Amino acid sequence: MNTPNPIFVELIRGPVTESSHRAAIAVSDSSGQIVQSWGDISQVILPRSGMKPLQAISLVESGALDAFGLGDAQLALACASHSGEFEHLEQVTAWLEALGCSEDDLECAPQRPLAEQWLHLSPQECPQPSKAVNNCSGKHAGFITTALHMNEPVEDYTSPEHPVQLLARQIISDLTGEAVESMPLACDNCGAPVYGVSISALATAAARMACPNEVNPLRTSAIRRVISAMRAHPHLVAGTGRADTVLMADDGFKGATKCGAEGVYMAILPEQGLGMAMKVDDGASRAADALLVAVLHHLGAIDCETRDRLAAKVNLTIYNPPGELISYIRVIERIL
Amino acid sequence: MNTPNPIFVELIRGPVTESSHRAAIAVSDSSGQIVQSWGDISQVILPRSGMKPLQAISLVESGALDAFGLGDAQLALACASHSGEFEHLEQVTAWLEALGCSEDDLECAPQRPLAEQWLHLSPQECPQPSKAVNNCSGKHAGFITTALHMNEPVEDYTSPEHPVQLLARQIISDLTGEAVESMPLACDNCGAPVYGVSISALATAAARMACPNEVNPLRTSAIRRVISAMRAHPHLVAGTGRADTVLMADDGFKGATKCGAEGVYMAILPEQGLGMAMKVDDGASRAADALLVAVLHHLGAIDCETRDRLAAKVNLTIYNPPGELISYIRVIERIL
Repeated sequence: MNTPNPIFVELIRGPVTESSHRAAIAVSDSSGQIVQSWGDISQVILPRSGMKPLQAISLVESGALDAFGLGDAQLALACASHSGEFEHLEQVTAWLEALGCSEDDLECAPQRPLAEQWLHLSPQECPQPSKAVNNCSGKHAGFITTALHMNEPVEDYTSPEHPVQLLARQIISDLTGEAVESMPLACDNCGAPVYGVSISALATAAARMACPNEVNPLRTSAIRRVISAMRAHPHLVAGTGRADTVLMADDGFKGATKCGAEGVYMAILPEQGLGMAMKVDDGASRAADALLVAVLHHLGAIDCETRDRLAAKVNLTIYNPPGELISYIRVIERIL
Repeated sequence: MNTPNPIFVELIRGPVTESSHRAAIAVSDSSGQIVQSWGDISQVILPRSGMKPLQAISLVESGALDAFGLGDAQLALACASHSGEFEHLEQVTAWLEALGCSEDDLECAPQRPLAEQWLHLSPQECPQPSKAVNNCSGKHAGFITTALHMNEPVEDYTSPEHPVQLLARQIISDLTGEAVESMPLACDNCGAPVYGVSISALATAAARMACPNEVNPLRTSAIRRVISAMRAHPHLVAGTGRADTVLMADDGFKGATKCGAEGVYMAILPEQGLGMAMKVDDGASRAADALLVAVLHHLGAIDCETRDRLAAKVNLTIYNPPGELISYIRVIERIL
């Protein structure tokens, strides 16, 4: 039996520690050297949407983004797990129209906007459920754009054998250092392929995005544009109140982060020359969000003041009807 | 460092174990003897809504339920974390009216119906958010009923010092065997007090409800009515598709179960003369739901066929847009 990953995050209610969350964290440099780690970072995880910034590289590197006269907004959406707010819907819809396509071409399923839950909005305040509102619709629009540019059929663009997916998989393999044939294949909720990689390999991929000089110039440029697009449009990458958006919109943070379902984060830290990947064992995003802020501070990517400001925005708090704080997230920072 | 609780539940996606959930489980008889356990059952937890069947005893034992001519439906709602479906709203509203009260007297906050999330319903298909729609509104109506019957003020009925709360606390103490002054006090999301008890003590309380002969006749009768009301109205206790409702509506299960937030369950098993309590470390209800069915089978409270039928209804499954199963919950039954 392996040593369990450390408990990093607790949910406190009154005098009781109500729940706890374990996680593994890897910090890598671009040579693939793991410079710090906690827990079992050899564990093979599915990065889920934490893979989108890697997948988005193909949209630029293939020449598709420029060929269609698209820019940072579309590239940020290709990296996004967006909240399905009106802005997201309008941007994705306009993008598909610019391609001569429509929402019907998206292979993701109709979804209710994440914003409803995140912002406790009434449905009247949100777009109606649709494929374009699906949090992955930007990634899918990116795949369609690449397929059109490659003169490949749009249909079945989410098939693992489609040239668009093979291209994205090759880039994931190059950056993570995991051999194409060794990456387990699974299907994401949106229908697109997702590949298993170790936590350490995901950290290395993030580090290679942070320091893209070692790869070919076309890829170096593509990677820089992906990061720059995410930072230029933090609201398109996630949505109001969500950790990726809040972090990248903050002056105190110069890197890029991307969440993935089931408690995944990857962080690209160009100033530190590092990449970070984490997985919360049980998949809780409340734990991943809080731990991300603490880890970024530990790595020197944000100062104390920024950490406290971001934690106040990101960390879960629960108030009773009279408005008193009754439950909150505590990160056990001393073990970092 | 304590031995971590065992991993009981995994989330599988393709060839990868994506997430995992640890839990502690206690099975007690009514003498307070722990007959089986897994993990650290001395851990003090907040049973949250898993305490409602204990709190509801006071509604009967005080004479309040009968004095107002109320019955099983109201008693089931007092035990409920209901989904805020139209039936729940109508029943709670009618109950408050029968008391000469209204929704305004409830001290819980307005809430959007849980049914929206559980059933993926559009808000047009659900009641509007309100205090009566709050999943705890039945418990609150029960407190108001008891307060009126005791000639105590309705106002501040959720204060820990209110006679209604002191009465409920005494019953919790009697059944769990935890001294009143030793139970940590916390505030539930709905504003009502909740008390910390060990997992083993919660199991013992459930066992004493399963075999109530050892306590005074008034309480014995009150406990029997609580269980009978939960079993008579499983839909009022939770809602369409939810584990408590599905289990208690099934002919193959003769006991009563109640979920609590953050991965708690208590199960009252009269046929076995046992009580069971569990807490999932990280608070995930998807893990608690699946583990509950497996544990009930392990304890002989449901047969294999019933287990499989219930698991098919309760355990999380995720399908991709073409409708293929891509992710599911797996309970590691061999360690039970």
